[in-house]
Amino acid sequence: MYQCSETNKTRETFCDIYFEMSLKKILLGTVFLRNRYIGLSSVSTITDKKYRFDESEGFLFRTKGKILTAAVFSSVLIGAAVNEQIKDKNVKSQSNDVVIEAGEKLPDLPTYTAEEVSKHGDKNSFWVTYKHGVYDVTKFLPSHPGGEQIMNAGGLSIEPFWNVYGMHKTPEIYKLLESYRIGNLHDDDVIDHSDDELWVKEPVRDNRLIVKTAKPFNAEIPAKYQIEFFDTPNELFYVRQHMPVPELDADDHRLKVTVKGSKIRTEEFSLRDLDKFRRVTTRAALMCAGNRRSEMNEQVKPVKGIGWMGGAISNAVWGGVYLRDVLLYSGVDPEDTKGKHVIFTGADIDATGVNFSTSIPLDMAMNPSSGILLATTMNGHPLPPDHGRPLRAVVPGAPAVRSVKWLQSITVSEDESPSHWHQKDYRAFNPSKTWETADFATAPPVYSLPVTSAICDPADGDVVSVKNGAVQVRGYAYSGGGAKIVRVDVSADGGRSWWEARELQADAAPPQQHYGWTLWTASVPVATQQKEVELWAKATDSNFNTQPERFNDIWNIRGILSNAYHRIKIKLVH
Amino acid sequence: MYQCSETNKTRETFCDIYFEMSLKKILLGTVFLRNRYIGLSSVSTITDKKYRFDESEGFLFRTKGKILTAAVFSSVLIGAAVNEQIKDKNVKSQSNDVVIEAGEKLPDLPTYTAEEVSKHGDKNSFWVTYKHGVYDVTKFLPSHPGGEQIMNAGGLSIEPFWNVYGMHKTPEIYKLLESYRIGNLHDDDVIDHSDDELWVKEPVRDNRLIVKTAKPFNAEIPAKYQIEFFDTPNELFYVRQHMPVPELDADDHRLKVTVKGSKIRTEEFSLRDLDKFRRVTTRAALMCAGNRRSEMNEQVKPVKGIGWMGGAISNAVWGGVYLRDVLLYSGVDPEDTKGKHVIFTGADIDATGVNFSTSIPLDMAMNPSSGILLATTMNGHPLPPDHGRPLRAVVPGAPAVRSVKWLQSITVSEDESPSHWHQKDYRAFNPSKTWETADFATAPPVYSLPVTSAICDPADGDVVSVKNGAVQVRGYAYSGGGAKIVRVDVSADGGRSWWEARELQADAAPPQQHYGWTLWTASVPVATQQKEVELWAKATDSNFNTQPERFNDIWNIRGILSNAYHRIKIKLVH
Repeated sequence: MYQCSETNKTRETFCDIYFEMSLKKILLGTVFLRNRYIGLSSVSTITDKKYRFDESEGFLFRTKGKILTAAVFSSVLIGAAVNEQIKDKNVKSQSNDVVIEAGEKLPDLPTYTAEEVSKHGDKNSFWVTYKHGVYDVTKFLPSHPGGEQIMNAGGLSIEPFWNVYGMHKTPEIYKLLESYRIGNLHDDDVIDHSDDELWVKEPVRDNRLIVKTAKPFNAEIPAKYQIEFFDTPNELFYVRQHMPVPELDADDHRLKVTVKGSKIRTEEFSLRDLDKFRRVTTRAALMCAGNRRSEMNEQVKPVKGIGWMGGAISNAVWGGVYLRDVLLYSGVDPEDTKGKHVIFTGADIDATGVNFSTSIPLDMAMNPSSGILLATTMNGHPLPPDHGRPLRAVVPGAPAVRSVKWLQSITVSEDESPSHWHQKDYRAFNPSKTWETADFATAPPVYSLPVTSAICDPADGDVVSVKNGAVQVRGYAYSGGGAKIVRVDVSADGGRSWWEARELQADAAPPQQHYGWTLWTASVPVATQQKEVELWAKATDSNFNTQPERFNDIWNIRGILSNAYHRIKIKLVH
Repeated sequence: MYQCSETNKTRETFCDIYFEMSLKKILLGTVFLRNRYIGLSSVSTITDKKYRFDESEGFLFRTKGKILTAAVFSSVLIGAAVNEQIKDKNVKSQSNDVVIEAGEKLPDLPTYTAEEVSKHGDKNSFWVTYKHGVYDVTKFLPSHPGGEQIMNAGGLSIEPFWNVYGMHKTPEIYKLLESYRIGNLHDDDVIDHSDDELWVKEPVRDNRLIVKTAKPFNAEIPAKYQIEFFDTPNELFYVRQHMPVPELDADDHRLKVTVKGSKIRTEEFSLRDLDKFRRVTTRAALMCAGNRRSEMNEQVKPVKGIGWMGGAISNAVWGGVYLRDVLLYSGVDPEDTKGKHVIFTGADIDATGVNFSTSIPLDMAMNPSSGILLATTMNGHPLPPDHGRPLRAVVPGAPAVRSVKWLQSITVSEDESPSHWHQKDYRAFNPSKTWETADFATAPPVYSLPVTSAICDPADGDVVSVKNGAVQVRGYAYSGGGAKIVRVDVSADGGRSWWEARELQADAAPPQQHYGWTLWTASVPVATQQKEVELWAKATDSNFNTQPERFNDIWNIRGILSNAYHRIKIKLVH
């Protein structure tokens, strides 16, 4: 139980509080009060100006004088595309005069108090502040990459949110924000939203990773390391975080499994309890649904999301127990799976206090072929913090988002996860759907990934020595849903001739149960007079699906499932 | 046991015999003796000029004075692409002066006796006869669509083979044959190879089917009937035969299951025995691996095989027992499946006495998700003769060739089926592989089909009334390996805009276990000024694989897996 005392009160409709809580607890959760962003794991009661916190589920918090329960608040949280980077060609093309940072004080503009700003918090008039800046972003709301997530910042500073969703902090987005500038925030109301405390416990990362966003940490594995190791070393495994990394203690960690039915049954497992199930290992590549997004973005038109190259996939051997076994033990009827879902909830918590969560169909979880794990090890070592220590789901063949890290609860339910990560992201649309016309409610969630491949060596733009009239080309290929790669073809002449990769390195698991990636090597003849060639790679899987030729007809607003042929240009030295 | 007596002897190196056997037995098997084609199920001993036949396995036969065992003979049978139609643009383009039939007597050419012809039966000098014609086809051998199957006709008449593989009997192939003409066969040696007896027991077929080849019978379901019924009526289900349809008695039928391991275990089941296993139904579309081949053929370059339009797929509810259950009962160890195969053998027999056979991996057979049946019913009725009466395998999600009809034996083995249907067909190559460079031994057999779709209504060339500014488009979509269709998109403007089908009619089975097809309806807006549009359809499955845009990069010598966008042109009436 924690006590906190009120330390400051600047305005009657707001209460500023300061929590004397351990940094660990702050990292476990966050509550947003007034313009100040403060972390906590839970608040059970609020009595006048005294706030009592304990470990009970759910929390209450006060903002703009209202007390909201977590449930109510999370129902407002239907913003899609959180955590990812805005990319807009308009912004890019205009960004010659770069805005270094938004929110500078601009003397010619009117001044507003925080109270005045706070009155503009709905869709009809939606203002936000950032440092000294006041912005009327009403017209921007429909095109916010994070969907309605932005509504939580109505009439408030967006800085605390951006501290969690650090990918906003780019010159392009600063410039976009400034285009909505209407005034300055009153000096008395400008608060220092230093974000050090939130991120100070982040793990130390390998400096060979290619950082895409620092907070949250998202980083690719360089292509050369993808093909250097069949099983990616843990420290080089690509990292995809939505929030700060929670720090959990393996000895204390508990997994709560709730099976909803005619009656609700709940089991709780320590890691030692889980070890009583048969322990197994599964080799599975994990790939972000947005891997290779940058190609779709560049070759067709802008999409929203982290600009992954081909480095958002790595391969590992995961050790743990079968989810299926734990669900059977916990009372799931394997004959009664239709239409039900398995909701995974992690210990990572967003700026509004909501735990990361997503779900998969119960059919999938109970299918003995799907090999879904509750994993505690990665390549024979305890999971690193970045990869879910001490416990994560591993859902082979699915977008990595379903392999929930820091797993703290599993709920079997009639409903899919209500989280915005599940409801408003990782769903597929055709190329004609816009943010205005896309209906997330009826769009199919992505539970399995299509066939893809990438050339890792040489790299685009490389100068390559021709040996014996040919170029050596190496890369990876992968297909979800248990499909195995059966062939990789490379063309150096725009598809007029295709050269089959002579070597495919893969796990021995059979098709339909094959979850690792495939590393391949091809020898591609080139003519003596050729000084430059464009290489195309495409893979075929055991269902004989192949990659689409180009991105045009698979383009989608979120830039996921970006699996057209990989094309690079190289220069030749004969 | 059958006795047969010699009835004719024209030359000492040949023996003409006539089997006084029931027509039923003739249909069950065939033996090729001299130039005469005679059916029988088995021959156990040959004593001088007396031939004794019984039901034992294997057979001997005499041709050109040599006695060969079935094993030796079948090892010669490595011809690919049997039973299917040659298509060659060169032939097509030259076929203005049509040869009505080959083998007319041509007075200016030299005459050869059958004995002289018989000396040219190897690769160095390969002659065949057809009616009065003698042909030196030595140079044609490497490009024979049926591969080395043709070697069986060395120095002999090809007419008996063509009676089984009736698709040869086209003006194009007659013309091709005549281009190799070198002489006339001596009048005394010209034999009437009437084929009536082989095919007289063929089932009566629905005359709405679109016949592609009559002998063997291969016929499409018209597109309009595909979308009229979610489960295709049995009489409209497309038909794909390799040989004459065997006539089997359900009461007498036995299924022999042999499990090879450290010791060989054999079980034999009557249909009544099989009924003791739990009976189940599975809704599964069956599709020929060559469905939509005609589009690949026309849009890229010629391929070999029946010129299927989109009608080589239909949907049905199959009733039977799980193969897995029968295999478990028969002694298969579910933990010892890796690298093993399940060989299905049907009662249909080719011109050389070899039963139709193919295999699937044992992993696949034992996977509880794969839902493979030993089926006795189709849409609630006993299997029709054309669909395997009384027993067939149904391997959902796989090319229909694996769903062996008239199933008489199952062998679990370390090896794949040795049959040429398995070894030399239904394998995948990249577009650059030719008949000369394709290595069937290392090419992956196709055990699962990629995502596909077709527009069934309107048809190509139709004049369509625009209603409320839009055209109604209906069709089917399907994906193998248990994948479910999640979206179908149609474009009327070359991919600039895509319209999602508003209605998907599908089975309720979950992804990874979904084997039926999907019927869809889309409403596609067209502009008032448009008089003609090209419609494109593409489907996306639950693994989020989509169809390739065009056939160029999936082209393959056999024209299988032909799943690029379906494109039709229609005229509009506003």
